[in-house]
Amino acid sequence: MADDYPFDGGDPPHHGGDVAAAARAFGLPRAGWLDLSTAVNPHAYPVASISREGVLRLPDSADDRSLREAAASYYRAPDWRSMVPAPGSQALIRWLPRLRAAGRVAVVGTTFAEHARSWRIAGHEVALVPALDRATDGYDVVVLCNPNSPDGRRTAPGQIIDEARRLATDGGWLVVDEAFADLAPEVSVAAAGVPGLVVLRSFGKFFGLPGLRLGFAVAGGDLARTLADALGPWAVSGWAGAIARAAFADDAWITRMRATLARDAQRMDALLMGRALNVVGGTALFRLVETANADSVFDSLARARILVRRFPDMPGRLRFGLPGRRRDWDRFGRALEDAAE
Amino acid sequence: MADDYPFDGGDPPHHGGDVAAAARAFGLPRAGWLDLSTAVNPHAYPVASISREGVLRLPDSADDRSLREAAASYYRAPDWRSMVPAPGSQALIRWLPRLRAAGRVAVVGTTFAEHARSWRIAGHEVALVPALDRATDGYDVVVLCNPNSPDGRRTAPGQIIDEARRLATDGGWLVVDEAFADLAPEVSVAAAGVPGLVVLRSFGKFFGLPGLRLGFAVAGGDLARTLADALGPWAVSGWAGAIARAAFADDAWITRMRATLARDAQRMDALLMGRALNVVGGTALFRLVETANADSVFDSLARARILVRRFPDMPGRLRFGLPGRRRDWDRFGRALEDAAE
Repeated sequence: MADDYPFDGGDPPHHGGDVAAAARAFGLPRAGWLDLSTAVNPHAYPVASISREGVLRLPDSADDRSLREAAASYYRAPDWRSMVPAPGSQALIRWLPRLRAAGRVAVVGTTFAEHARSWRIAGHEVALVPALDRATDGYDVVVLCNPNSPDGRRTAPGQIIDEARRLATDGGWLVVDEAFADLAPEVSVAAAGVPGLVVLRSFGKFFGLPGLRLGFAVAGGDLARTLADALGPWAVSGWAGAIARAAFADDAWITRMRATLARDAQRMDALLMGRALNVVGGTALFRLVETANADSVFDSLARARILVRRFPDMPGRLRFGLPGRRRDWDRFGRALEDAAE
Repeated sequence: MADDYPFDGGDPPHHGGDVAAAARAFGLPRAGWLDLSTAVNPHAYPVASISREGVLRLPDSADDRSLREAAASYYRAPDWRSMVPAPGSQALIRWLPRLRAAGRVAVVGTTFAEHARSWRIAGHEVALVPALDRATDGYDVVVLCNPNSPDGRRTAPGQIIDEARRLATDGGWLVVDEAFADLAPEVSVAAAGVPGLVVLRSFGKFFGLPGLRLGFAVAGGDLARTLADALGPWAVSGWAGAIARAAFADDAWITRMRATLARDAQRMDALLMGRALNVVGGTALFRLVETANADSVFDSLARARILVRRFPDMPGRLRFGLPGRRRDWDRFGRALEDAAE
């Protein structure tokens, strides 16, 4: 497996979502792009009205408590004290490596590149390992994304909990990034309450509001306190808190959206395979394709101002997020016909 | 001077703005409070309309660049590369101590308690010193708030720049928290561009939107890069970026607001001194009072559901933020009459 993470931090990883950079690279205007390079729900949670009131003051202790209670209920965490809100799970990914002495860290990869980078720039020695069962001995911390991106690989909760327990006996941590587990709640270990287990959740992906910057850690008592104290008071915006409290409690929307996205993902698979693009993995928010023509498909779509995700270290693979509106599906379908010819 | 910061981190400091806690302490409902315990502009920047569009995607490189350019222009920083946006200056206060080896830190105090706490929980040895001119030798980092809260003390820019240069010769930093410098731009050193000088700015206080969570560091090239890289991508919300870009460019609002707040502060002084409460310091966003009756004034105002700021380590002092609406001024004036009898 290629190790796509430079040592000593190195250059920042390549991410999806940078339409501005794609527009520059292709000499096209920034406007009018259909961005399928991120894995964000295109049917965003319907924010009824945003009033300025929500940000005229700092969130207080009651706001903090009620957000953590709502999150604990939605994520099925042991209790509100185990929930740590943050301005995006990325903030937690950056903080965790700073809360323990430099050690040996295994990242189950290939996966979201910010994990390895964050541990490396904090001074840890990071290795990529192919699966959780090979990442057992000699590491202080193991990082796993479940389901994983870009391939959608799932790891069984029982295996995760066993590994967390084993690591915890020597003070180790198992960090499980469940950014895509809203659509696969059966794989989540947020309810486990095992010492040394840290679960990361992303609000923005499933609820379709990534620019809000809201994520959570679920961790055992001491670690949750340490993490919350590291982030400090007022970590998340008043608007993020208010919207999340409403969204977490909206069971009807959540249930309907799971069905909608499952159907959308099937529709995407049909489109892709109809163009001889083999779907080799994914979740209901993104599909991974393997093709010898990845570069030409990417370029052709980009010329139609449709941005998908490619991976410098996996040149034969492309990841497709889901269009939302009917006209975006139609536009994508037409562009894909041209691209795959 | 009392050292109000416990070692080893200790309990979190007491802050203004926790109406929920005050309501609990006084057995009163949480609703209907007039919160003068924070030092936030009550005339918030008029956010015309907030559309969901602003948070449907992650901010991209063009969003990041334009926010940093707008901030550099408003804060008169050397260039956009020296600006590091963060979800509140509090996030920067927590990150800075993690970016250098444990050392000796002098905080010019008494001041905002999160500075000392943040350096301590990151493993540094922290001392309080009474003024910048006494904080010269033997420290790796010096932290100064300018103007300071709660007393409004100002330190001359020339002295700050000299001290930053001196510290920088041994790799030291001078951290200047200019959270209240919007109303005193003449004291700002954001334009200085001196190595080792880190200036922190708060968007929420002057623009009256603290719950938005937006702050900036102004730092020399290498340190700005290190800090931005520590925070990682997508540090601030799409809404925060959009509102700040508009606000930074609104010269008419900024000019008018400086005059309004200066007038409001005079009005507050007249009210306080008319009740024999001696104003001993402050900025145009808060006034500091010294009185033998601080506890009874605090309690009496709280029973009228008006929260002001008291300081456990300075029992004779109270800090008053500014009311905004006419009816809040009237309510405060009446409650103050009762309180100061």
